[in-house]
Amino acid sequence: MNTFGTLFRFTGFGESHGAAIGGVIDGMPAGVAVSIDEVQAELDRRRPGQSALTTARSEPDRVEVLSGLFEGVTTGCPIGFVIRNKDHRSADYSNVSHTFRPSHADFTYTAKYGLRDYRGGGRSSARETATRVVAGAFAMQALRAMGVKVTAFTTAVGPLSIPMPAEAPSREAIEANPVRCPDAEMAASMERLILDVRADGDTIGGAVSCIVTGLPAGVGDPVFGRLGARLADAMLSINAAKGFEYGMGFEGCTRRGSEMIDPFYTDEEGRVATRSNHSGGIQGGISNGMPVMFRVGFKPVATLLQDVETIDDEGRPVMLHARGRHDPCVVARAVPVVEAMTAMTLLDAILINRASRL
Amino acid sequence: MNTFGTLFRFTGFGESHGAAIGGVIDGMPAGVAVSIDEVQAELDRRRPGQSALTTARSEPDRVEVLSGLFEGVTTGCPIGFVIRNKDHRSADYSNVSHTFRPSHADFTYTAKYGLRDYRGGGRSSARETATRVVAGAFAMQALRAMGVKVTAFTTAVGPLSIPMPAEAPSREAIEANPVRCPDAEMAASMERLILDVRADGDTIGGAVSCIVTGLPAGVGDPVFGRLGARLADAMLSINAAKGFEYGMGFEGCTRRGSEMIDPFYTDEEGRVATRSNHSGGIQGGISNGMPVMFRVGFKPVATLLQDVETIDDEGRPVMLHARGRHDPCVVARAVPVVEAMTAMTLLDAILINRASRL
Amino acid sequence: MNTFGTLFRFTGFGESHGAAIGGVIDGMPAGVAVSIDEVQAELDRRRPGQSALTTARSEPDRVEVLSGLFEGVTTGCPIGFVIRNKDHRSADYSNVSHTFRPSHADFTYTAKYGLRDYRGGGRSSARETATRVVAGAFAMQALRAMGVKVTAFTTAVGPLSIPMPAEAPSREAIEANPVRCPDAEMAASMERLILDVRADGDTIGGAVSCIVTGLPAGVGDPVFGRLGARLADAMLSINAAKGFEYGMGFEGCTRRGSEMIDPFYTDEEGRVATRSNHSGGIQGGISNGMPVMFRVGFKPVATLLQDVETIDDEGRPVMLHARGRHDPCVVARAVPVVEAMTAMTLLDAILINRASRL
Amino acid sequence: MNTFGTLFRFTGFGESHGAAIGGVIDGMPAGVAVSIDEVQAELDRRRPGQSALTTARSEPDRVEVLSGLFEGVTTGCPIGFVIRNKDHRSADYSNVSHTFRPSHADFTYTAKYGLRDYRGGGRSSARETATRVVAGAFAMQALRAMGVKVTAFTTAVGPLSIPMPAEAPSREAIEANPVRCPDAEMAASMERLILDVRADGDTIGGAVSCIVTGLPAGVGDPVFGRLGARLADAMLSINAAKGFEYGMGFEGCTRRGSEMIDPFYTDEEGRVATRSNHSGGIQGGISNGMPVMFRVGFKPVATLLQDVETIDDEGRPVMLHARGRHDPCVVARAVPVVEAMTAMTLLDAILINRASRL
Repeated sequence: MNTFGTLFRFTGFGESHGAAIGGVIDGMPAGVAVSIDEVQAELDRRRPGQSALTTARSEPDRVEVLSGLFEGVTTGCPIGFVIRNKDHRSADYSNVSHTFRPSHADFTYTAKYGLRDYRGGGRSSARETATRVVAGAFAMQALRAMGVKVTAFTTAVGPLSIPMPAEAPSREAIEANPVRCPDAEMAASMERLILDVRADGDTIGGAVSCIVTGLPAGVGDPVFGRLGARLADAMLSINAAKGFEYGMGFEGCTRRGSEMIDPFYTDEEGRVATRSNHSGGIQGGISNGMPVMFRVGFKPVATLLQDVETIDDEGRPVMLHARGRHDPCVVARAVPVVEAMTAMTLLDAILINRASRL
Repeated sequence: MNTFGTLFRFTGFGESHGAAIGGVIDGMPAGVAVSIDEVQAELDRRRPGQSALTTARSEPDRVEVLSGLFEGVTTGCPIGFVIRNKDHRSADYSNVSHTFRPSHADFTYTAKYGLRDYRGGGRSSARETATRVVAGAFAMQALRAMGVKVTAFTTAVGPLSIPMPAEAPSREAIEANPVRCPDAEMAASMERLILDVRADGDTIGGAVSCIVTGLPAGVGDPVFGRLGARLADAMLSINAAKGFEYGMGFEGCTRRGSEMIDPFYTDEEGRVATRSNHSGGIQGGISNGMPVMFRVGFKPVATLLQDVETIDDEGRPVMLHARGRHDPCVVARAVPVVEAMTAMTLLDAILINRASRL
Repeated sequence: MNTFGTLFRFTGFGESHGAAIGGVIDGMPAGVAVSIDEVQAELDRRRPGQSALTTARSEPDRVEVLSGLFEGVTTGCPIGFVIRNKDHRSADYSNVSHTFRPSHADFTYTAKYGLRDYRGGGRSSARETATRVVAGAFAMQALRAMGVKVTAFTTAVGPLSIPMPAEAPSREAIEANPVRCPDAEMAASMERLILDVRADGDTIGGAVSCIVTGLPAGVGDPVFGRLGARLADAMLSINAAKGFEYGMGFEGCTRRGSEMIDPFYTDEEGRVATRSNHSGGIQGGISNGMPVMFRVGFKPVATLLQDVETIDDEGRPVMLHARGRHDPCVVARAVPVVEAMTAMTLLDAILINRASRL
Repeated sequence: MNTFGTLFRFTGFGESHGAAIGGVIDGMPAGVAVSIDEVQAELDRRRPGQSALTTARSEPDRVEVLSGLFEGVTTGCPIGFVIRNKDHRSADYSNVSHTFRPSHADFTYTAKYGLRDYRGGGRSSARETATRVVAGAFAMQALRAMGVKVTAFTTAVGPLSIPMPAEAPSREAIEANPVRCPDAEMAASMERLILDVRADGDTIGGAVSCIVTGLPAGVGDPVFGRLGARLADAMLSINAAKGFEYGMGFEGCTRRGSEMIDPFYTDEEGRVATRSNHSGGIQGGISNGMPVMFRVGFKPVATLLQDVETIDDEGRPVMLHARGRHDPCVVARAVPVVEAMTAMTLLDAILINRASRL
């Protein structure tokens, strides 16, 4: 399954070390003036090699849009695009062609398909997420025209974390440091931790939080397709994501109802609002007009520059010493991917919602 | 959206205070000898009024299966079923017909649909989950024939919690107490806490964990439709669920890669296995043959038997004092719902997986 | 697959000789005032035993709606319904339990599922279409509120046929005779032919045509999901349907382009219209605002009250002499089914269409 | 909607006069050794400019496959591909940018999307079908490994037609003439007729028939997703298709049941077979193991090299004299498109069918 969405649908393709990655964006509403420069700018945020914290793989990652636009405006027709792979050193991977790298997808792909493309992890490589960023950047431009804004940022690297802020931080505060944590001081500590971890040939986990503003009340579905479920599905579809929570999340599940209630009131503009937002903007599966807030946990990636014990594809024990180029911590580069998946999820939910009433 | 699944599909209907709830199970494989008594037994586990910890609403919840079986065996045709509502005292709800109860779905349904059935929460009531338990009980019987077993149990009530056990506890240990926590001592503490909370007219959150054994390696999809994403979607579709994590979850996201790796080895029967299971049985979105392990957080339900400030559907402030009958803590009754949603998700993924290879 | 549709979705269940048939209507827009009497009236049009031309099976076919309405108005929640089976004489079918009736689904169901419910054809019986009529009657009431009207009628019985009329005939003209052919004289001939055929223990085929008015321009999709393809799928899903054509259909495929062009003009109200309607209201897969016109061919049903040669489920030759009660010609009772499937298809396409533009 | 299929899914993109057309093939089973030369050969069969009977537009139509293959074998991962557009003379279309060409999609696209890419018909051009041929060629190679063979051929041009043959004609007989009619004499007449029509600046309709052999019994669904309905949907999704019928089709609908029955017998290899095949290989929506046979009608294309009366996008009458390059009759080039859509439909249905039984 390489398609995401119901009315706004993204279908991706491509392996880490093939000729290209790319995809088709279908169901993009007609009449949106799209800036390809902005799409490219989002892609640049995800690009490898942006800072000392990320893999040294160097990919220019230029998106080529092949259809669906006419004089800069979406026509309602599908948008095909490709991103050529440049820096794929297949030689780097020849030594792992018969090895099941621990905590990677080598074994599970083989179990599912009977064979696998072992070059750079093939389809299981996070390289594939670049195509999601392109699709998300289109969705984002439609959402902006509707007044909806999606902001993701790093809130944890290993044990270092900041709480969910009450309001979405500015893009400037987020982009001010390579960790993409809006708290500058904490960002500096996170950065030091990542560099230490890398020096050990190790990796470390973290978390990305996301705040959506401007989403009108009434979006989402009551039973299946709840907004929380749609977002959970979207987030857990990102490589290395291990957990999702919204509003007060797991912490709120330790509390009493009287601590967690969000009293309604009518604001000065006559709109329904809540005095607190423990619900994270979603009640009964449907947006209530308050900011949607959620958090995604990312495990430490499993490629260690250390000796690790494993087996080969005939079940024999082997010792693996990984080479190749990998991120010591994925969260900074996961930020634009979280935003992209959020944008696609919300645009789809908004379009579906138009069918709710006569 | 009231349908869940791709090849094994459940479609539900029904409101808390209508004539009946029910649904259609489609894509149930032919040739499964199904015990309706077992289906009913699962429904009884979810039934209100089983213990002092649950709502006093008394529903016999008898399932009537209307199609899809012939001489006790599934035919491959859709299985329609109904559960009549008996104890629906609509009068209980007349006082809230124009009130937006805080942290309920009253406002969001109105925002989405322009109107709502206010009797007992209508479709937003957790009563709807009874139909999922029926569908899940069918899926479970197909899974059992394939050697797959799903076990959910309570691991937290408010701040009281137990860690994820290494192995699935027995059904006996789980059913030995009304909280459905397999640790008897902790269960007793949890029970006391719930009774205290109820005495205060308050509610409390908690968590349900689930362990799946016997799932073969190779189930799930690499990009969208990852097994973790499918489960996250399924779990977050349950009323009051606010978070999902699998394997080491959020806790694992604070760690280093070297602590989290699951080394492969070949077990005595020649099967690929891992020495630890931090991955929770899923790698690259696909099952690896180890137990699948995950945890779901449930918020405290928002119906308090206390005065709460809110607004009516014309935006005017009102004071609400809820009556009606509600669970002080949902986790014990959520256990069979988590199992049901898990069973449906896995059966669907197993069936989809049959298309992976030539 | 027992679900039809994308946003407006119908899921049916039930066998000819089980306890009940029924279904779930999901995605019905909120805010439609629905008359259940009208739903019942549609069901009565499809009911067996209405005239000498149809099976003697006597089913009251009372629909019981279980959810999704509040004070007579749709709430946006799924509409569950059941129709109890009454007159199911299972004994009639015991002699065919091991026989593959020719040109029935006995063999193919067994090939697919490994077993089958042989009572009255089980799920392959046209009895199942009663549930579609219910769902269609709901869709029809939403369409009416949008100004869309669907009219089907018989245009052929065996070799007797009338051409597609330029305008939709009135309901009165159609219901004036048991064949549901708006041409009274031809209807009388058709009726005589059917009675003759029945007297021979034989059956005969026919055709149903359908005209949709009031559908706005712009509904349907350009590539997959073309309006013609959606309708073809819907029509060929009806038991005994063997062909579908729209506009000038197969006849138009023998012609030259210069004979078939539909010149545009601007009508007196300033709307775009075409001087002829060879296209049948659909151009490039999308409605053009002219009446949508199509025709469906139904084969003669294969249950003959004559000796027929066949085999049993162990491959041994047997002679079959059918008993049971069957229609000598299905078209009259297919008319409301064609309308129902058309209404569902169009409502779904209209709802999907709301996502076309920003 | 630019995706076709459930488990085997094709998603296409691209306009007639954009940079490229292409698509993603998802759900292709792993382990199929694929010949790209064969894919290219199918594409060459659809290519414009192959004979005097087709448009003079000259497109090399080279497919570039970007992913999903490893060492010539499918990996189960999505197959992305592009076909660059070369010979797109946008200038040819500048004169129609504000004109609604009659019986084209210009008006309906504008009604749906509020704007359109007028260059060469944009997405409504049959050029898009080239991408279906690529996807179909992949499906065909999987089907071949399963013993299924799909053969389409021309059976009518205007009023000239041949009956459905009892057996699939050879590829050689079909490719022996530019009309792709296996009856050489009739092919010559058809060719003359097309050249006459072209000389008049006119176009003409026709029909393509298709015979599938080797499809096992048991494929297809009983209610929705019937094999006939799936094929109808697939065929009516092809540009200019106006009708679909299978088995004896509309002709069989004029007959008596006693003429149309297909008696079962057990053949010399012990397989269930039927003595006649009026059913066209499908009974109750499911394949019965006999050849699947159907026919598709194509209207004459509406681009005439004659003066035609129409309106512009402000509703004012204009006279149009089309230039550009178009096929006088589409059927010869539709043959590989019919095969491609059939292959995709059947592979999808076969994969879905694997879920039928425990």
